[in-house]
Amino acid sequence: MSTSVAGDDYLDFLRREDEVLMAFVHIADERPPVREGLPLSGLSVGVKDLFDTADFPSAYGSPIYRDHRPPTDAAVVGALKAAGAFIAGKTTTTEFATFPPTQTLNPRNHAHTPGGSSAGSASAVAAGLIDIALGSQTKGSVIRPASFCGVVGFKPSFNRLSRSGVKMLAESLDTVGLFANQVAEVERVYAVLTRDEAKEEIAAPRIAFTRTPQWDEVSLDVQDALLGAVAFLRGAGLSVDEIEMPAAFESLPEQAAIIHDFEAGRSLLPELLNARDKIEPSLAAALDAAQEIPGHVHSAALMFLSRMRSAIAEVFARYDVVLCAAAPNEPPPLSEGTTGSPIMNISWTALHLPCISLPVLSGRSGLPVGLQIVGGAYRDHALLSTARKIEGLYAGKSV
Amino acid sequence: MSTSVAGDDYLDFLRREDEVLMAFVHIADERPPVREGLPLSGLSVGVKDLFDTADFPSAYGSPIYRDHRPPTDAAVVGALKAAGAFIAGKTTTTEFATFPPTQTLNPRNHAHTPGGSSAGSASAVAAGLIDIALGSQTKGSVIRPASFCGVVGFKPSFNRLSRSGVKMLAESLDTVGLFANQVAEVERVYAVLTRDEAKEEIAAPRIAFTRTPQWDEVSLDVQDALLGAVAFLRGAGLSVDEIEMPAAFESLPEQAAIIHDFEAGRSLLPELLNARDKIEPSLAAALDAAQEIPGHVHSAALMFLSRMRSAIAEVFARYDVVLCAAAPNEPPPLSEGTTGSPIMNISWTALHLPCISLPVLSGRSGLPVGLQIVGGAYRDHALLSTARKIEGLYAGKSV
Repeated sequence: MSTSVAGDDYLDFLRREDEVLMAFVHIADERPPVREGLPLSGLSVGVKDLFDTADFPSAYGSPIYRDHRPPTDAAVVGALKAAGAFIAGKTTTTEFATFPPTQTLNPRNHAHTPGGSSAGSASAVAAGLIDIALGSQTKGSVIRPASFCGVVGFKPSFNRLSRSGVKMLAESLDTVGLFANQVAEVERVYAVLTRDEAKEEIAAPRIAFTRTPQWDEVSLDVQDALLGAVAFLRGAGLSVDEIEMPAAFESLPEQAAIIHDFEAGRSLLPELLNARDKIEPSLAAALDAAQEIPGHVHSAALMFLSRMRSAIAEVFARYDVVLCAAAPNEPPPLSEGTTGSPIMNISWTALHLPCISLPVLSGRSGLPVGLQIVGGAYRDHALLSTARKIEGLYAGKSV
Repeated sequence: MSTSVAGDDYLDFLRREDEVLMAFVHIADERPPVREGLPLSGLSVGVKDLFDTADFPSAYGSPIYRDHRPPTDAAVVGALKAAGAFIAGKTTTTEFATFPPTQTLNPRNHAHTPGGSSAGSASAVAAGLIDIALGSQTKGSVIRPASFCGVVGFKPSFNRLSRSGVKMLAESLDTVGLFANQVAEVERVYAVLTRDEAKEEIAAPRIAFTRTPQWDEVSLDVQDALLGAVAFLRGAGLSVDEIEMPAAFESLPEQAAIIHDFEAGRSLLPELLNARDKIEPSLAAALDAAQEIPGHVHSAALMFLSRMRSAIAEVFARYDVVLCAAAPNEPPPLSEGTTGSPIMNISWTALHLPCISLPVLSGRSGLPVGLQIVGGAYRDHALLSTARKIEGLYAGKSV
């Protein structure tokens, strides 16, 4: 069975598989005939339930919005439909894209988390239930679940994909992203959504590897897998320099967390004031705590990030891409009650740089670990073409 | 009659005055007793109908959303209510905050435009119907109507006020702003909304005046008014240097317009596809044209703005504020069918810098012209305190 099967057989397959996986909160009632001749004709898409959809309820992972039916599709959903894609359903999101886990299982191992917040999107693509899925990343909610589920996850440069109709969490950080099983599929959809067919193929990409200031938080098996990837790529003929990030880089996770918390606290203030009893208690407590962050601390953090975005440009003047871990470990077991740590993602999100996770590594249990590749600001095509090259090397193709 | 009158008398006054002004699309049915002891107790507020309100329909200036009732207040609306403010009603916005004029009149002269897109907010504050109003600026939709209606308009640094629940137009530019009749009122509300009480009083502000590369588009009477303002401030003992903007500054309006058009085209694509007949024809045509802008042009414009934000920091290392025109002319007559030109605003919006318009100048017909004061990134308090000082000088106070 595959996603290209026509009509109701596909939806039967989807419903059956999802009884176990629980990646969807809504599945389409019918699949209309494919409109041929459009750029994404027949492609089946899952949409994270943080995105507004006129054809499905849109609950943002919250009981407050259980029956909410927005009048209009999110802009990217509208664009996908106009390009001929089929919206197969809405995929799970953690509550308002924050930390409480969803019910979704990881198709690679049902005892481990698929990550969050874009849990359903990563899981459903990994299980082959859909071709493409929409997600969003405020800290690490695209790259981390991609790493955990063993799929390609792509977070573009900031504001390259519209957030119109996406429930806002922290607007300085929120970024719309994509999941697929191949880089070429990401490129195809990204080109349609951005109306940008420009290719930037780099014959000999200048590649850097960085341990990042968070190296001590990376588990030993993932450290080994990363060092192995560097050796593999060098062995395949690519040039890979090891570099250190600028010193101030170390403060990025803390400063980005301030922005995240302050902005999430203000975005969700109406819900906190009017429907506190329907917010998961630990999330309500976090939103309460966020109300105590003084505004000048938020402002100073925005100013810091602004300076860091200028500083990081020097690194990307010397290198086309930077390699690092997509997550600090294999997907944690469900018993830990967490969707995992975004520590390898939040700095890049805050810097507004394009990132991709390739499912080419694994940890000590054989579970997936993503190789994260980070590109220069607005050089998304250069990143994607380099990622496709590396994906090809792992698939046994020569450079 | 004033905005502080209790209960239904105030609402009667509001309804009566608005029969002529047409600044409101909805007025509250009742005014509950003031909750004393809150930071904004009793303040009456108008909310641009681009903001979601759970207590009023929210139509975004479009017949598509005539009966739309969002489930949740925009974050800033929720924050104002929590601080004790009274939401007196929803004020007019041009269609999706774009260019077709509203029905609202300019209280200074009914034969001239109040500007746009925050027409109702500027007009109602200028007429004394409300204390404070919320607006938004994507090109010049706060500073320009403030200039035209003769009120204080404040557009903060980018992302200092939440856009959650505000209909998105162009997310790289959209900025929430405020209208009031005094700088101190803006400061009071801004401190509450940002949870930032930090004052930055500057004893001897370093002030620059710039003609901007658009000086030739400024009418002669407004040029004279501005040069007069510089002479007045120097005479009052302030230091005012005349400076030129960096050369690349000249390209900002064009590059910002690309971003505006591309992003407006993608934000409103679902409406364009599904409800074209309910979109004003010239706006639908503009949205159609926006679909032809290639994505790489948008991406290059984002990159250009990113570089310009770094470059402008050098100017604001030398000066606390920069003075220029808030609009290129007095409010145009209604017969011209325009809300006026945002040419004096779009560059500063794109640079994400805080701007304020002070109603201290006038043109050849005696109609209002704003003195625009621009601050450094995230130095909103320094801007506001300098603006308050200049406001005081015009009111006859000494430095």
